[in-house]
Amino acid sequence: MNQRLDKVMEWLQDQDIDLCFVQSKENVFYFTQFYTDPHERLMGVFLFKEQDPFFVCPNMEVNQARSAGWSFEVIGYSDHENPWDLIALALKQRQVSIQKVAIEKDVTSYSRAEELLEITGHPLIMSAEEKLNQLRLIKDKDEIKIMREAARLADFGVQVGIDALQTGVTEMEVLATIEYELKKKGIREMSFSTMVLFGEKSGDPHGNPGLRVLKEGDFVLFDLGVVLDGYCSDITRTVVYKRATEEQKNIYETVLKAQTAALEASKEGTRIGDLDTIARNIIEDAGFGENFPHRLGHGLGINVHEYPSMSFTNDEYLKVGMVYTIEPGIYLPKIGGVRIEDDVVITEQGYETLTKFPKEFTVINR
Amino acid sequence: MNQRLDKVMEWLQDQDIDLCFVQSKENVFYFTQFYTDPHERLMGVFLFKEQDPFFVCPNMEVNQARSAGWSFEVIGYSDHENPWDLIALALKQRQVSIQKVAIEKDVTSYSRAEELLEITGHPLIMSAEEKLNQLRLIKDKDEIKIMREAARLADFGVQVGIDALQTGVTEMEVLATIEYELKKKGIREMSFSTMVLFGEKSGDPHGNPGLRVLKEGDFVLFDLGVVLDGYCSDITRTVVYKRATEEQKNIYETVLKAQTAALEASKEGTRIGDLDTIARNIIEDAGFGENFPHRLGHGLGINVHEYPSMSFTNDEYLKVGMVYTIEPGIYLPKIGGVRIEDDVVITEQGYETLTKFPKEFTVINR
Repeated sequence: MNQRLDKVMEWLQDQDIDLCFVQSKENVFYFTQFYTDPHERLMGVFLFKEQDPFFVCPNMEVNQARSAGWSFEVIGYSDHENPWDLIALALKQRQVSIQKVAIEKDVTSYSRAEELLEITGHPLIMSAEEKLNQLRLIKDKDEIKIMREAARLADFGVQVGIDALQTGVTEMEVLATIEYELKKKGIREMSFSTMVLFGEKSGDPHGNPGLRVLKEGDFVLFDLGVVLDGYCSDITRTVVYKRATEEQKNIYETVLKAQTAALEASKEGTRIGDLDTIARNIIEDAGFGENFPHRLGHGLGINVHEYPSMSFTNDEYLKVGMVYTIEPGIYLPKIGGVRIEDDVVITEQGYETLTKFPKEFTVINR
Repeated sequence: MNQRLDKVMEWLQDQDIDLCFVQSKENVFYFTQFYTDPHERLMGVFLFKEQDPFFVCPNMEVNQARSAGWSFEVIGYSDHENPWDLIALALKQRQVSIQKVAIEKDVTSYSRAEELLEITGHPLIMSAEEKLNQLRLIKDKDEIKIMREAARLADFGVQVGIDALQTGVTEMEVLATIEYELKKKGIREMSFSTMVLFGEKSGDPHGNPGLRVLKEGDFVLFDLGVVLDGYCSDITRTVVYKRATEEQKNIYETVLKAQTAALEASKEGTRIGDLDTIARNIIEDAGFGENFPHRLGHGLGINVHEYPSMSFTNDEYLKVGMVYTIEPGIYLPKIGGVRIEDDVVITEQGYETLTKFPKEFTVINR
């Protein structure tokens, strides 16, 4: 943890920022190892150029924050107290002169920012997000270990989904079965709304699972992930139910070829945007260029979407410790869609896929 | 819908506010009937003192917004466009002079507010939330009809949970079973994290379900709700497993007496805070005053917590169409806790409970 704090302090010194206020549950977790959703209540880390940070949270969370490992000051408040009064006092005691503050501009509410500006005498306000996203970009061994386990549970979810397929079952029934088995293992939160889509419905990359029933010849697309100890996984697999057409097989093999090529290009030093281009070229050459309407993937970590963006416009280079998804897809309005997605980490040796569910073209036939 | 827009326009005229910008998914739904989570993408309604409103959303959502019933202008944007450029243009075309804007200060991000202030020439900024919360406070017949059905599904969830109880089952297994059966009925979203707590764990009003197994003599507390067509339900029931002590029965009957008294006081014209006091007095008289550490309940609607707050400090009066929860509880650290919660609507005749699951003291014995 202290390394993370050190890096922020370095940045604050470098940019001459007197105070950095971090209040999203993801970034609070990043600095404190304490993961909770305080809903509308204030919870935040106050970081300084030269002094020790402090953490503010409701009284009832103080002990949990301590046991999570936060070793600096904690300021707890009860429901009838205004936490900003306590914060103003703490700032006064530290005698920090505040000319410039950094906040998470994209997720801090206007009224919360107003409170902060008020008690700090309306300093210059900067964005903390770019820097925090950069810090979170490289995962350490402990983070990767958790993410490997989160990916294993995503694999398990796909297996549960496949086992639940039978003629006449609805998308929601299969989805409910997947989440049921994951919850039984103690998973309290999926990393996003689980997707189970049948037939033509898989042809919409933003489709919503519903009461569509499974029929022979349908594509079945699973897109799901879990939150484990604060970290997300994200997998997509597509199978065909009972019997497949040549066209379905052709689409599938094209997506798999694109996905494999992008995986194989995954190593330290590769331009990130090139992965998208490599996959996209294969899909375009097969005549499906217009049917791949999204970027290749996204960074993965405490958020299910974070840095790096796996878009062809990304001019950054892959580094050891980056974790991201590779998920090309082809979507045909009436026939349906295929997407194949793995979670990938860049290693000293090249890459490792965290999700390991088999990917060969599969017709479910029981 | 037009009534809702009319009421906002009246307020804007009254307060001389030139523009009201609404961007939370709940308030967007309130005005457009279009319920979706656009994640980080901008989606918002722009409301004016005298001119027609317009709605801004990603291109791929335009058709859905139209079919939901929005009949005014829709400005769609694609991923490579900056929606604020399009908004600036639309404002220019309308030739509105903007001296004062209202935004949802508590939920609009600082950077989004900055964008708005930038294109409107840094006008005076006001909070829209108090007014919007007031508007949403009184539910109409259509809203109550949906909420009645949402409550029915919450009742069903409790029944599923009770049916799943057996010695050795874990809290998470029961929770997973409840959500499984609700998902099979097409429910995609619970209105909050479902709670199933056994034994001493029910003694913590903020307890987290986990791998605690069910034993004879345990209290079992269920707290759950669903989101149906944009509206929330919220029910709590507590039962005892296999055999109960006199103390458990005494606690239960005290909570039920408090809950019943607050229900019976529910009618137009009652001071809202009095309901809390009526229930609290009963619990205090029974010697458990310190074991009821939260307010009596909360308003319910598009949000699971909204106006009115059922706290003893609330000096407002009940009106026909208000919907709220009544949920007193007694929590004893080692023994466990009891909470009984219903969703209530104020009617011309008095009140109606939307949740109807039986409440008599129940020992599950199969």
